Amino acid sequence: MDTTPTLINITRATVSKIGSVDFENLTFGNVFTDHMLACEYSNGAWQAPVIKPYEPFMIDPSAKVFHYGQAIFEGMKAYKDEHDDVWLFRPDENYDRFNKSAARLAMPEVPENIFIGGLKALLNIEREWVKKGKGNSLYIRPFMIATGSGVIAAPSTQYRFMIILSPARSYYSGEVKVIIAEHYSRAANGGIGAAKAAGNYSAQFYPTKLANEQGFQQIIWTDDATHTRLEEAGTMNVFFRINDTLYTAPTSERILDGVTRKSIIELAARENIPVEVRPVLVSEIVAAAENGTLKEIFGAGTAAVINPICGFSYKGKYYELPVSEDTFAAELKEKLTNIQYKLAEDTFGWTVKV
Amino acid sequence: MDTTPTLINITRATVSKIGSVDFENLTFGNVFTDHMLACEYSNGAWQAPVIKPYEPFMIDPSAKVFHYGQAIFEGMKAYKDEHDDVWLFRPDENYDRFNKSAARLAMPEVPENIFIGGLKALLNIEREWVKKGKGNSLYIRPFMIATGSGVIAAPSTQYRFMIILSPARSYYSGEVKVIIAEHYSRAANGGIGAAKAAGNYSAQFYPTKLANEQGFQQIIWTDDATHTRLEEAGTMNVFFRINDTLYTAPTSERILDGVTRKSIIELAARENIPVEVRPVLVSEIVAAAENGTLKEIFGAGTAAVINPICGFSYKGKYYELPVSEDTFAAELKEKLTNIQYKLAEDTFGWTVKV
Ligand SMILES: Cc1ncc(COP(=O)(O)O)c(C=O)c1O
Ligand SMILES: Cc1ncc(COP(=O)(O)O)c(C=O)c1O
Repeated sequence: MDTTPTLINITRATVSKIGSVDFENLTFGNVFTDHMLACEYSNGAWQAPVIKPYEPFMIDPSAKVFHYGQAIFEGMKAYKDEHDDVWLFRPDENYDRFNKSAARLAMPEVPENIFIGGLKALLNIEREWVKKGKGNSLYIRPFMIATGSGVIAAPSTQYRFMIILSPARSYYSGEVKVIIAEHYSRAANGGIGAAKAAGNYSAQFYPTKLANEQGFQQIIWTDDATHTRLEEAGTMNVFFRINDTLYTAPTSERILDGVTRKSIIELAARENIPVEVRPVLVSEIVAAAENGTLKEIFGAGTAAVINPICGFSYKGKYYELPVSEDTFAAELKEKLTNIQYKLAEDTFGWTVKV
Repeated sequence: MDTTPTLINITRATVSKIGSVDFENLTFGNVFTDHMLACEYSNGAWQAPVIKPYEPFMIDPSAKVFHYGQAIFEGMKAYKDEHDDVWLFRPDENYDRFNKSAARLAMPEVPENIFIGGLKALLNIEREWVKKGKGNSLYIRPFMIATGSGVIAAPSTQYRFMIILSPARSYYSGEVKVIIAEHYSRAANGGIGAAKAAGNYSAQFYPTKLANEQGFQQIIWTDDATHTRLEEAGTMNVFFRINDTLYTAPTSERILDGVTRKSIIELAARENIPVEVRPVLVSEIVAAAENGTLKEIFGAGTAAVINPICGFSYKGKYYELPVSEDTFAAELKEKLTNIQYKLAEDTFGWTVKV
């Protein structure tokens, strides 16, 4: 793969703001590093990417991103090992998914030397922002927006691809209780649920706010037609453990093909934990909760890695999950993060050095 | 209703660009007037709106509108009558719908004195841009975007409401052939289809591009679960005439409650044209096309007013509609635009003077 970022024009920030950042007390996604990458698409071609100080930019009020939501993103992380080397986790997966999202939103694909090459060049400049120690990471947000002007509902002819970086600790904290969706939904059949499209997320804000008001942190979405199948959470795929088997929904047009999800499936297989990828019915999870065979539910996603869920609500009834020292969630999280932080051998070839 | 825009701070453009605009050859939504309205929401409150020269603005790369699509809009028009008075058509409907969209996207409602009062103040300044003559209008685009920064999928705490204006002739030209959706969809049950949310539109770009490549201008969306019910088109509600009755789908969570649609329903009732608001099945429309009782299909929306559809494709077969001089589409469009342009008495009280 040609990831040589030959043409990147770099303008360095005159002072770094890193000294003012409290790395022990980071709120997710609020602090950004000194530099960002930006690349314009116009006249049917990507222009040379630039790396420059992180800063606001000018945009027309009629830019299509504001009116028609033509915007996609990715979420990845960089990790630092004991030798101060910086690593990415399966960046090719994010790159592929980004371009799948682009196609679904009628946006141009971003070439590999801009996405991967540009990211590596940016990370090289920001190495200091990747802190050592498990749990510390640099969250990476590649995104693309339609910058072309004009209030007519048609694809833009101008786009901007950007990468911004935000130092992170962990995404969720505290107990996570979820509600199983009975009315609202995240995605339509034949819709854009499988794309990391901006519009998918704001659609969840209001239902999630209602859930929050009832004391639940997240919603587990169900299929919009029947609300009988468990699909995924806001920014996580979901696994259910009944007895000693893990179950997770197959990816579809409605479900994001998560990198963490697919890594867990492979990792579990290696660890001889049975995983079944098949539709997971609300009714079977409720039954399993009632008869005591439901041992765990956890979310899986880049931001949170693995997030144990301590209970769920369905049709107004709350089901508490058993507390255990010895969970698949903990075991798989440990094994997965050990690979990410280069504390265990990466037998899968998932990690890529920057 | 209190629409007094008491606090609007106005900065006039030093020169008007109106002289450089070719009003006979306008492409929809490409040219903007000299001024725009902008109003910021922060610290839980709307600040004083400003009217200032139309211009790009600064925004942070991490603004939530770019990442989570928290953005809504409206589409309305101003018309000039023979006496040089400027009129709005049912602006209260757009105002109400805007705030319904806001609620669904977990955004703050915009007060009436900012939305309606601000719009009137802006239009007063831009009267010259509203051209006389049927077909001419000033397209109005109120919109709200999440400007708060931070790459965490949660509602913003900062927003910007804006109104921009674009002189228009008519939206569609030429014959409109449509495809009936068999796979892709526009909206989910329990989703945001009934909101004028930015994300709903980019979701349609790729399927519409596929339709365009096959020689069709638009898609008529069907329900995402069964694809058996006809719902609406990209930016239009849809009416079907079988024999002498008009049929249109009921509004729902999946369908935008169009102002043109509801006006046509009322107007048709006044004109003794039978209208039935009920689910319209693909199968009955195909059957009616085959047995010759399907007389018309037309789209209804602010931009196009009424847009006759000359044929549709379903399961690879193309159904041509009969050509007639004497259509409900033409009659209703004539009656509706006469009200809008103050050429006929507005028995409904729909028009509002600026
Ligand atoms: C809707 C959705 N589901 C699942 C995930 C998990 O995907 P990944 O493991 O690639 O981060 C994400 C990404 O954060 C997401 O946005
Ligand atoms: C999805 C959709 N349906 C229908 C319409 C028609 O609504 P209105 O008549 O209020 O313009 C619009 C608005 O343009 C729309 O965006």
